[in-house]
Amino acid sequence: MAETLDAFLQRGRVLVDEALERWLPKPPDCPAVIAEAMRYSIFAGGKRLRPMLTLAAAEAIDRGATYLALPAACAIEMIHTYSLIHDDLPAMDNDTLRRGRPTLHVVYGDGVAILAGDGLHAEAFTLLADAPEIDTPEMLRRRIRALRVIGVAAGAAGMVGGQTIDLQAAGQAPGHAIVLDAEELQAMHACKTGALIRASAVSGATMAGGSDPQITAVDRYAAELGLAFQIVDDVLDVEGSAEQLGKSAGKDAAAAKPTYPSIYGVERSRILAADCIDRALAVIGDAGLRNGQLAAIAKWVVSRTN
Amino acid sequence: MAETLDAFLQRGRVLVDEALERWLPKPPDCPAVIAEAMRYSIFAGGKRLRPMLTLAAAEAIDRGATYLALPAACAIEMIHTYSLIHDDLPAMDNDTLRRGRPTLHVVYGDGVAILAGDGLHAEAFTLLADAPEIDTPEMLRRRIRALRVIGVAAGAAGMVGGQTIDLQAAGQAPGHAIVLDAEELQAMHACKTGALIRASAVSGATMAGGSDPQITAVDRYAAELGLAFQIVDDVLDVEGSAEQLGKSAGKDAAAAKPTYPSIYGVERSRILAADCIDRALAVIGDAGLRNGQLAAIAKWVVSRTN
Repeated sequence: MAETLDAFLQRGRVLVDEALERWLPKPPDCPAVIAEAMRYSIFAGGKRLRPMLTLAAAEAIDRGATYLALPAACAIEMIHTYSLIHDDLPAMDNDTLRRGRPTLHVVYGDGVAILAGDGLHAEAFTLLADAPEIDTPEMLRRRIRALRVIGVAAGAAGMVGGQTIDLQAAGQAPGHAIVLDAEELQAMHACKTGALIRASAVSGATMAGGSDPQITAVDRYAAELGLAFQIVDDVLDVEGSAEQLGKSAGKDAAAAKPTYPSIYGVERSRILAADCIDRALAVIGDAGLRNGQLAAIAKWVVSRTN
Repeated sequence: MAETLDAFLQRGRVLVDEALERWLPKPPDCPAVIAEAMRYSIFAGGKRLRPMLTLAAAEAIDRGATYLALPAACAIEMIHTYSLIHDDLPAMDNDTLRRGRPTLHVVYGDGVAILAGDGLHAEAFTLLADAPEIDTPEMLRRRIRALRVIGVAAGAAGMVGGQTIDLQAAGQAPGHAIVLDAEELQAMHACKTGALIRASAVSGATMAGGSDPQITAVDRYAAELGLAFQIVDDVLDVEGSAEQLGKSAGKDAAAAKPTYPSIYGVERSRILAADCIDRALAVIGDAGLRNGQLAAIAKWVVSRTN
């Protein structure tokens, strides 16, 4: 019998959480406070969407590739977490609550929070480069390719670039404020959250030895998924209560940030998200990659309520 | 005739500066403001000590290895620069002047400064992972080894860990303040600045195909050099004027941070730095690596006046 999505998510989360705990630095290799701060944010009860995508993409290519993709899955989660930590800082979004808990800088101060983010960022790339002496040339090449995909997605041409545009649109870049139209809003999200979501899936497929057409299909699937994810996020921000979301609801509207509901309305936004998922399912269907959990994850993304 | 240190530094700086300009993201790949902000700090007139060490270590192993080591040299400079940007933030050292110019956050705001640092950090690892398809297995292995060395040095067990201890000692980590004795001060510097200086030399030697004993010698040389560099930095902070240093002199004393001069006095500190350089020269002499610029760089570090 095929594995259910719940069973896959349960299995994947255990693997990822155990690996993260094992691979994050701890004393005496580093100061206790930075080890604690990194873990505070990494183990804050996140959905682990990105590493689950990495593992699902790897398994869709090769059912036995789970462990090959695990370092990439953990690296992605470390980068995602560092970006949340820096995003929450007073100099950025100034969020004091995330997933129902005080944000890192509220607990440890801004300085330690900046450093914990920087530490997770460095660790992500470091763990992808572990133990090259035992690797075959083929695995070395997959690792470096995955590393490159993740690095480009995390950098100025990806996530950091998207956050820069977001900051400019929110009027927090003195002398560089901009106003986004609907198209630019979508481009901003494609960088800010889409790039890393795509890299999650692509790095998994790469580590599993996917062919170029398979990797392209996984990339297109993830691009649609990422956009749907962002639209649903915006809709939940309008509809949800702080209690359900574990963060301050209505915050986007309060900050006058453009969102999908503010441009298209809630109903049309939900239709747009569903259209993305239809296209994502078609792409992996055409590529013969519907045997694993990629389809189920896509449906989960639009049906989630928090 | 052997190349003079000045000629080497001139040649190296041109190579590194041109490569940095070429490899840093620019529009339309990323927003203009983040491209400008990254370049503002990268091209701020730094000494380029670290990338020069990378190139010198590579050439000491193999005179033709300069270009093989160039990505590592640039990656190290990007990481060093990102750490200065984050260090200067109000949440950290709150410096408004560096190398005679306003610090990045003064010009672009704290948010863009955090993101420019993050962008340089990601770019450093990304460029080390460029174009794996044209590499031989041997070069892939050297790249991943260099990447790992740089990642560990930049992370919580290295630079980020040292900065955490520095923040705790300065009373800027709420609930986690500490007081450093002389030995702990040295351990802090070994992480905060020493680790990346060692990685500069080791990554150069690694990219050039150095043997394990050669890499170990280069590592020990760089550890002594890094300590000497820090001691001289502390001494210059006491002796120098803001004009000479291009930053606020006496800042360490004002912040009640422990320094070498505050513990040992200026004269004894200078002797300690000279002892480090003697040991550094002995190590590379024993390893047969005195033909390049490593010795001259070591002497430059203790004789510098800014």
